Amino acid sequence: MIDLAALRADTPGCAEVLHLNNAGASLPTRQVVAAVTGHLTREMLTGGYEAAREAEPAVRDTYAALAALIGAAPDEIAVVENATRAWDLAFYGIPLRAGDRVLTSRAEYGANFVAYLQRQRRDGVAIVVLPDDPATGTVDLTALEAELRRGAALVSLPHVPTGSGVVAPAAAVGRLAKAHGALYLLDACQSAGQLDLDVDALQCDFLSATGRKYLRAPRGTGFLYCRASVLPQIEPPILDHHAATWTGPDSFEMAPTAQRFEVWEGNVAAKIGLGVAVRYALAVGVPAMEARIRGLAADLRGRLTDVPGVRVRDEGSDLCGLVTFTAEGHEPAAVQAALRARRINVSVSGAASSLLDFQARGLTSVLRASVHAYNSEDEIARFTDTLAEVLRG
Amino acid sequence: MIDLAALRADTPGCAEVLHLNNAGASLPTRQVVAAVTGHLTREMLTGGYEAAREAEPAVRDTYAALAALIGAAPDEIAVVENATRAWDLAFYGIPLRAGDRVLTSRAEYGANFVAYLQRQRRDGVAIVVLPDDPATGTVDLTALEAELRRGAALVSLPHVPTGSGVVAPAAAVGRLAKAHGALYLLDACQSAGQLDLDVDALQCDFLSATGRKYLRAPRGTGFLYCRASVLPQIEPPILDHHAATWTGPDSFEMAPTAQRFEVWEGNVAAKIGLGVAVRYALAVGVPAMEARIRGLAADLRGRLTDVPGVRVRDEGSDLCGLVTFTAEGHEPAAVQAALRARRINVSVSGAASSLLDFQARGLTSVLRASVHAYNSEDEIARFTDTLAEVLRG
Repeated sequence: MIDLAALRADTPGCAEVLHLNNAGASLPTRQVVAAVTGHLTREMLTGGYEAAREAEPAVRDTYAALAALIGAAPDEIAVVENATRAWDLAFYGIPLRAGDRVLTSRAEYGANFVAYLQRQRRDGVAIVVLPDDPATGTVDLTALEAELRRGAALVSLPHVPTGSGVVAPAAAVGRLAKAHGALYLLDACQSAGQLDLDVDALQCDFLSATGRKYLRAPRGTGFLYCRASVLPQIEPPILDHHAATWTGPDSFEMAPTAQRFEVWEGNVAAKIGLGVAVRYALAVGVPAMEARIRGLAADLRGRLTDVPGVRVRDEGSDLCGLVTFTAEGHEPAAVQAALRARRINVSVSGAASSLLDFQARGLTSVLRASVHAYNSEDEIARFTDTLAEVLRG
Repeated sequence: MIDLAALRADTPGCAEVLHLNNAGASLPTRQVVAAVTGHLTREMLTGGYEAAREAEPAVRDTYAALAALIGAAPDEIAVVENATRAWDLAFYGIPLRAGDRVLTSRAEYGANFVAYLQRQRRDGVAIVVLPDDPATGTVDLTALEAELRRGAALVSLPHVPTGSGVVAPAAAVGRLAKAHGALYLLDACQSAGQLDLDVDALQCDFLSATGRKYLRAPRGTGFLYCRASVLPQIEPPILDHHAATWTGPDSFEMAPTAQRFEVWEGNVAAKIGLGVAVRYALAVGVPAMEARIRGLAADLRGRLTDVPGVRVRDEGSDLCGLVTFTAEGHEPAAVQAALRARRINVSVSGAASSLLDFQARGLTSVLRASVHAYNSEDEIARFTDTLAEVLRG
């Protein structure tokens, strides 16, 4: 179903590097970079505002494309500078009071956890970290249901964590959250573009994601989905006169759409690039990419177990394109640098970005090799061969 | 002092358009666009994180350049997506309580005023709009002092408004604010790159600005200055694990520098472009550009008064590069469109972005022609000639 040769031809970086840092930032397609640099050139030649006016249809299409990607309406989409700000604008906008309980998972991302702690201190919200189910390696649904019975204002967790390839049962979480009347904020930073997403199937009220990872869009792009029925009760923590209309000396009115989460000024070129990237993903087909990514990652995990001293660290039943591992006697950062010197890109994921998960797994950092659909079977083999060589020293 | 031919040679847009929308977004230099597209190309060829690592010195220099621009230390600078977010992160981070008085000016920008109104409703802060002094056309310093005597937590106003060329006496405001123990937030969105700025001379605690206007940097860039001595008392309204360190299951620690206002992910290419733009401005010399911009604008105002039916709307004693005017019997938007058809760029500034000022001036919108140092005397003459032709119909 995937035309690998076409995908690779659209990805000039394939000729330069063996890129397994797609969960950090993917190699963009030439189409995305052409759209972005094309708009920057128009800005240079005709002016920033004037170029933006010409590009209005392209900018509008970014919303339509994102809506199509996740089964939402364009009015439910806010385009912002990154996934963290997308998530923030939802989370800090939820009217939580002292004592309100927020349920999250052990795999929660550092940025989000710091925000929980800020609202714990400032607003008195209570953070409940759900345990993982050893059978699935991810959030324990029985524990979730028990905590929901005790009452919760919000369930908020990552679909795919930053430091492991274990996928959370996001739709099952959504069913339970909805059954118990809790709001549900899904951090899809690592899943958008990798896994097929549908906000109705997921039953989430909010979904935040980035452009630069599996969507292959420019850095500095992200988006927030907010369900239309939930929107009226959400007041973003910061507002400008694009998010709200200044109606009089003492009055303002928030936008009736997800525009209330946006700020007027932004990087128009990057926003156009985000739309081009999403259209590309839709044309290739996210379900087909998901299948390929899962297959390549499984292949990679299999090969890694054959490399002496390497231990795969993704422990769970539902695994995706993020493959994490350690190599006995080797610092992850040193291995990363040695691979980089051979034009192979992987990343190091550390406790600072997912403290509770790393503590529970008894780890301080792991190597992360994250595959995308444009990676080839040959690359997987070449990667593990080179890794073995590097580890031999 | 200014090498006009060199400035214009560095500005490819000069050959395409007559750009008098520099207060909207300036034409960027070829150096800025080359830096941005160069980095985007590196991201495409080697990966987003990998390219960022290579570019670390360039990104660091953006902070150093901005610090040099305004007489601050690099640690007092946060680089964010735009001036509005820069301003927001300061304003919403100031610990204001119910009854605390915020003094602002009639010229305040819509984005900021909406934020005041949100905190008025949410936190009970009191907004005091200072009157203008008819003699200077800007904030009345006697009234300011009287209100400061009554007590104020914060003085917050724009250095140059969006809808007129009248410069606020920002340093005099700073002296008074400091003498009365109020914090001082200066919105330098329209002045950075146009007027010579020094935070110690201005005595401001915070200064927010954008890249895209007089600094000629890419869209989607902005920065916040926060005085080191004030920083410890400011808690940004939203935090991630770059702004703060996640130190344990129940604890976090905000960054001791202005990094606490930032978010980890951003558009690295644009951030590099911002630094290149600021270095360019410093090399040309901001005082020299300020003198030229003021001179060109005075020339433009003089010529406009000779165009039948045109009325210059900048009423004040200290005027800068934003020239606003109306043309009797002509809708500003229609004039803008007619000029645009002749490859001349101006903008329309409307009441929605500066409601109190427009109401007081009895206007709903004005045409705004904003000059930059790279504009030529010939362009000013050609602009007014073409305008006269357009108005004749």
